[in-house]
Amino acid sequence: MFDGAQYAQWSRKIFEQMRAGGVEAVDVTVAYHENFRSTVNLLMEWNRLFRENADLIALAQNIDEMRAINASGRTAIFLALQNPSPIEAEIGLVEMLFRLGIRIMQLSYNNQSLLCSGWTEEHDSGLTLMGREVVNEMNRLGMVIDMSHAGERSTLDVIDYSARPVVISHANPYSWHPTRRNVSDEVLRRLARTGGLVGLSLYPRHMPAGSGTSLRGFCEMAARLADMIGAGRIGIGSDLCQDRPASSLHWMREGRWRFPNPTAESTDFPSPVSWFSSNLDFPNIAEGLRQIGFAEQEIAGIMGGNWVRFLSSAMQPDDRTLPRSVAVAAGQGLVDKLARVNG
Amino acid sequence: MFDGAQYAQWSRKIFEQMRAGGVEAVDVTVAYHENFRSTVNLLMEWNRLFRENADLIALAQNIDEMRAINASGRTAIFLALQNPSPIEAEIGLVEMLFRLGIRIMQLSYNNQSLLCSGWTEEHDSGLTLMGREVVNEMNRLGMVIDMSHAGERSTLDVIDYSARPVVISHANPYSWHPTRRNVSDEVLRRLARTGGLVGLSLYPRHMPAGSGTSLRGFCEMAARLADMIGAGRIGIGSDLCQDRPASSLHWMREGRWRFPNPTAESTDFPSPVSWFSSNLDFPNIAEGLRQIGFAEQEIAGIMGGNWVRFLSSAMQPDDRTLPRSVAVAAGQGLVDKLARVNG
Repeated sequence: MFDGAQYAQWSRKIFEQMRAGGVEAVDVTVAYHENFRSTVNLLMEWNRLFRENADLIALAQNIDEMRAINASGRTAIFLALQNPSPIEAEIGLVEMLFRLGIRIMQLSYNNQSLLCSGWTEEHDSGLTLMGREVVNEMNRLGMVIDMSHAGERSTLDVIDYSARPVVISHANPYSWHPTRRNVSDEVLRRLARTGGLVGLSLYPRHMPAGSGTSLRGFCEMAARLADMIGAGRIGIGSDLCQDRPASSLHWMREGRWRFPNPTAESTDFPSPVSWFSSNLDFPNIAEGLRQIGFAEQEIAGIMGGNWVRFLSSAMQPDDRTLPRSVAVAAGQGLVDKLARVNG
Repeated sequence: MFDGAQYAQWSRKIFEQMRAGGVEAVDVTVAYHENFRSTVNLLMEWNRLFRENADLIALAQNIDEMRAINASGRTAIFLALQNPSPIEAEIGLVEMLFRLGIRIMQLSYNNQSLLCSGWTEEHDSGLTLMGREVVNEMNRLGMVIDMSHAGERSTLDVIDYSARPVVISHANPYSWHPTRRNVSDEVLRRLARTGGLVGLSLYPRHMPAGSGTSLRGFCEMAARLADMIGAGRIGIGSDLCQDRPASSLHWMREGRWRFPNPTAESTDFPSPVSWFSSNLDFPNIAEGLRQIGFAEQEIAGIMGGNWVRFLSSAMQPDDRTLPRSVAVAAGQGLVDKLARVNG
């Protein structure tokens, strides 16, 4: 089991549930609206979590490391950003964050970034001039480009522009639940055609009946999507925000880019669906896919194999341009056998 | 004489030329791509310049202060930003920069900002969600909104959205020299209709014959523009970059949002036009306007009176919402007699 997006209130309990649920790897969100320095603080907090829970989890920077961590009976943690705010306006910070362990970065989160638009903006800037620079740099380093939370034109621009396949780590088809936070068929088709991957979301607001959405409905959606783009292009990005307080939701929504509205109704995370509320529940999804008629091999792919296959190539640095310092940090063994994935 | 935009290599020589050229006030650019902390460093550098040249210049935070500085035989310096990078992604930093003396801020510089698009982007995002928050906050504080270097849709969006008139501090009509860095007739008309101001630029790249553009051609353009929007809506924003090294040009163009292109031809500032190369040359422009047939009162307006009139209202804080701390900083005398300018 590989989960492409979680932002739980991290604790030993959660890590124990990862083990109990048979979760091999999780892409964890480190930052939403933080700048570089605050992100470094959060990475140091992750270092503490790795130290204190070294029997349960460990940092993974590539798939080989993930496999070694799994072989020792632990869950591999990949570090991800849901916003490019940590690179501020400095292209050089992409490599600095890569060296610090970040392997996946969204190019926007809901609203406009310096790189592209989020889905809540009225007009979509598409991929900006700085955005192209950052895509080039992420392609070079092997930092995975994640277009969750982006606008449609921005997503299509990046799929077209990037030399490497991109991922939409946690979203569902717009045709299943029509919010612009979800993804149009055109995007899904072009994503799949270029070797990309979509991680299906279990966050109630991304599903048609919210917290009341049925497992069967979810799996039927997955079956339709598999017919359209192939089961090999589908993974899971649960968007699990287990144990998070409402203040986390406000940070995700507002950061500090606007003042909180003192008269707004207080909001909180929605209740989870009955069949998925923690890392213990992934077997429910596998069983649901089985009952809807997916083959065992397809289920293994959706539950993790597809993510692993995608990342095996997506995270390999481009050895034609990679500075030696990074090549060494990424593991010289890997670098030696590399060929550029696309073009 | 009021100059709406300069980014000279500041020195005692330049300040002496301001005095010799009869310059009463200058909006100086403090920052282009700096973040908040680096901007504070630049403001401390300005504090040093104010200390060491206290016989020639002083900081002005409103028009009353400007008049007091002029009465003491000195040039008033207003502090401006050509990019919102100093507010990073934090709405609260707008007020912090206001308290530190910033009175004018562009919402973008050439490329995409978090607030809107610059003129070099392919697609114009218009005013973003964070952009609206920042416009509200600048309106409240009395920080002047400057749309130089922005995209067309972004500029129109801001003119429409802002409760207060906005300025385009340094640009020329597109109809005179068709680069998107200049401004369309539609923008100029809507700017003027809403009480805004355009500062005509003396930067060679904004003029049709570059460094060879004639004073007469410049003044003929001003005459046509006055026919279209009224002489009272026109000022000067010279964009004087006197004594700047080529490295300043690279910083302005690239900041750190992209890597420098090692194979690109080295670029430098263009030679100035023969009739304007320093603060000594403003009388040439006044004389050129006189020869083309402008009335003395119109010339006085274009050379400074229009800027002063515009800023007299644009810089007044909105006393309906202003926190007391800022009201005091802005001068309680002013605040007491305020009424909101628009709506």
